[in-house]
Amino acid sequence: MGICPGIRGDYSLGLELGSITMSIITLTTDFGESSPYVAIMKGVILGIDPTAQIIDLSHQIVPQDIHQANYFLVSAIPYFPKNTIHIAVIDPGVGTQRKPIAVSIDDRYLIGPDNGIFSGIIQQGKQVQIWELNNSAYWRSQLSSTFHGRDIFAPIAAHLSRGIRIEELGIVKTDWIVLEPPKPENGLNEIRGQVTTIDHFGNLITNIAYSQDKQPPNILVLNDKDYRKRFQWVRTYGEALSGELVVLISSDGFLEIAIVNGNAAKELNVSRGSSIRIGFLSGA
Amino acid sequence: MGICPGIRGDYSLGLELGSITMSIITLTTDFGESSPYVAIMKGVILGIDPTAQIIDLSHQIVPQDIHQANYFLVSAIPYFPKNTIHIAVIDPGVGTQRKPIAVSIDDRYLIGPDNGIFSGIIQQGKQVQIWELNNSAYWRSQLSSTFHGRDIFAPIAAHLSRGIRIEELGIVKTDWIVLEPPKPENGLNEIRGQVTTIDHFGNLITNIAYSQDKQPPNILVLNDKDYRKRFQWVRTYGEALSGELVVLISSDGFLEIAIVNGNAAKELNVSRGSSIRIGFLSGA
Amino acid sequence: MGICPGIRGDYSLGLELGSITMSIITLTTDFGESSPYVAIMKGVILGIDPTAQIIDLSHQIVPQDIHQANYFLVSAIPYFPKNTIHIAVIDPGVGTQRKPIAVSIDDRYLIGPDNGIFSGIIQQGKQVQIWELNNSAYWRSQLSSTFHGRDIFAPIAAHLSRGIRIEELGIVKTDWIVLEPPKPENGLNEIRGQVTTIDHFGNLITNIAYSQDKQPPNILVLNDKDYRKRFQWVRTYGEALSGELVVLISSDGFLEIAIVNGNAAKELNVSRGSSIRIGFLSGA
Repeated sequence: MGICPGIRGDYSLGLELGSITMSIITLTTDFGESSPYVAIMKGVILGIDPTAQIIDLSHQIVPQDIHQANYFLVSAIPYFPKNTIHIAVIDPGVGTQRKPIAVSIDDRYLIGPDNGIFSGIIQQGKQVQIWELNNSAYWRSQLSSTFHGRDIFAPIAAHLSRGIRIEELGIVKTDWIVLEPPKPENGLNEIRGQVTTIDHFGNLITNIAYSQDKQPPNILVLNDKDYRKRFQWVRTYGEALSGELVVLISSDGFLEIAIVNGNAAKELNVSRGSSIRIGFLSGA
Repeated sequence: MGICPGIRGDYSLGLELGSITMSIITLTTDFGESSPYVAIMKGVILGIDPTAQIIDLSHQIVPQDIHQANYFLVSAIPYFPKNTIHIAVIDPGVGTQRKPIAVSIDDRYLIGPDNGIFSGIIQQGKQVQIWELNNSAYWRSQLSSTFHGRDIFAPIAAHLSRGIRIEELGIVKTDWIVLEPPKPENGLNEIRGQVTTIDHFGNLITNIAYSQDKQPPNILVLNDKDYRKRFQWVRTYGEALSGELVVLISSDGFLEIAIVNGNAAKELNVSRGSSIRIGFLSGA
Repeated sequence: MGICPGIRGDYSLGLELGSITMSIITLTTDFGESSPYVAIMKGVILGIDPTAQIIDLSHQIVPQDIHQANYFLVSAIPYFPKNTIHIAVIDPGVGTQRKPIAVSIDDRYLIGPDNGIFSGIIQQGKQVQIWELNNSAYWRSQLSSTFHGRDIFAPIAAHLSRGIRIEELGIVKTDWIVLEPPKPENGLNEIRGQVTTIDHFGNLITNIAYSQDKQPPNILVLNDKDYRKRFQWVRTYGEALSGELVVLISSDGFLEIAIVNGNAAKELNVSRGSSIRIGFLSGA
């Protein structure tokens, strides 16, 4: 969003580009698009800061799945420029004891519930400060018990975007919910992990970090079903024929299982959380 | 969209923020995303006003469901800032006698077919004027019979955004289609209503307005099936255990039925329009 | 995106509106929204050019369906203003021999894989130049084998948007993949074609170009099933009753089959690629 020099003056927090000021607010929710919840949040943001540039990340997070949200956010947020304000509302505990928080992390801002969805990003951060949002002066005047995306998170983001300092929105919080994603285990000549996400193509992304200089596995066990010798180790899908089962390294550096031009999740009957085992036996 | 002072001069209608001019156009359709219809409308808008900020509200309105569209729009539009231009295209009667209209309402603009989708907002308005869009000079030069979103509504919105006055786009219309959503009925110790919307979580939103100071019901009948004593009255989902049936007040002030961490619509086999009855019998 | 005169100076390529500079980047993918791929591409773009206005066209192209992508893009892109930069990532051959390309065409820019998805637009262009993107200085520093949307196409678009000249990004390419969509055939008193797309309403759009001044057909055969006398020739859906089978001219000038207020694809069991035959026999 281009703003002229001098117009917003000191009231501005956004990214400085020469003398241009930016203000990007992203949205990640499990609201879908059939209900008006996302539209309402956009209205609240623009009602407070009509110059904010709203960017949809996803509204198709699996409902109430804080683990998928954590994976999604840690995958996407690092690519955004400094000073971007990220709202995430996957919030099964809305209206209970769970606190609304803002995180300032290496010149980024994260806004949402304190339920672990920001754990992955927080762990990567160098300069991290967590704030409990307790200044209701910056919330909508009527607080509902079921829609803090509208009543707290959207207005807080828009006020940040307009230049209100984070110190005015809440108080420093020294403990917060940490979500521990399942870690792979190293066994004798094998690694045991999990399918952490299934993408739109049905490709299975696992939690096993991998790189091209490692030995390719020759055993693959999914949900206790052995696919030994029935898969190929490839660099990319197009190296195998249509319909073939392939194992490769995903674009974010994890082991991935795919069926070329097919849907591995459906054809192999695998879902998020399914177990995966790779092995390196000689003569297998 | 930040525009420099003086650049657009008197040709601008947008919201004035100091000397910054804004021009927000929202889109609500039943087009989905698999076909190019939404993309085409965005192209038409930006072809006329490349500075317009286009905001997607939803393209997942149930196809041709003017009642759901009416509910969606009345829920979302009030949150948007003044001078926002809202296009809505849920238009089963496209190309027939139904008229294309623009509504100016308390410094907002609504653009779409005259089929009742704007009824709810119009009823809430203080200063309302309906215009029949009949000046084809502001339409696309070739008018199709099946896609007025592209040929009339998108160009009209973009011309409004560029500062053309609404008086130039049509003539005042004194009658228009009014959609009457079903009203709840008060019986002896009971209220009878309908499920008016089902959100992405499967929560059932009804047409029974409610507030925390009213007596909680102890009888709940959905589609003639009695859930007496099998539900809890809560303020928010997290107050009950996973899997429990709860009744609460929705974020827009209506009675809502949910299954905690579940999908009430699927599990209870309820759909939009299903009947709901709540009662207050002593000893129930 | 409003930018003040003089700020970007000669570094700017965008559309000049008086002295306002624009920079619109559209996205078309088969990524869906449940995975972070689209969000990542938006982050990469805004990381390089935070002033770019990102417009979602669709992320619901059928996975790896380059024919649907070609149809979608040729339908939508012509409506956008000059200097728009269009990224399209439907890329089953990612990481193989297929080249990444940019197309400059009548002051538009297309960026994506050389697999035919731009064929339709290229055929319509007057001034067309194809560039093989081979200057990795403008890519992300780590090139993956499976996600060129993130590593090549998004950064190239953002650098173009910032004003880097296309000549610096690659070298002229004189041969490229051409996708030939199936053409209808004219028989004796009949035309044989295909269903090329099915929209969100289940309407069947064919590859048979038609206009209102042609003779209406009186025979309709879908997948070898004869609907003679069981359909109506109409100008728009609302001219027939709910549930009736109608044949009309689509908003982009092709023969279209629909069921009023219904879903023709589901009810007639027709899918993309299904055969259609229309006839004009007297006495039929």
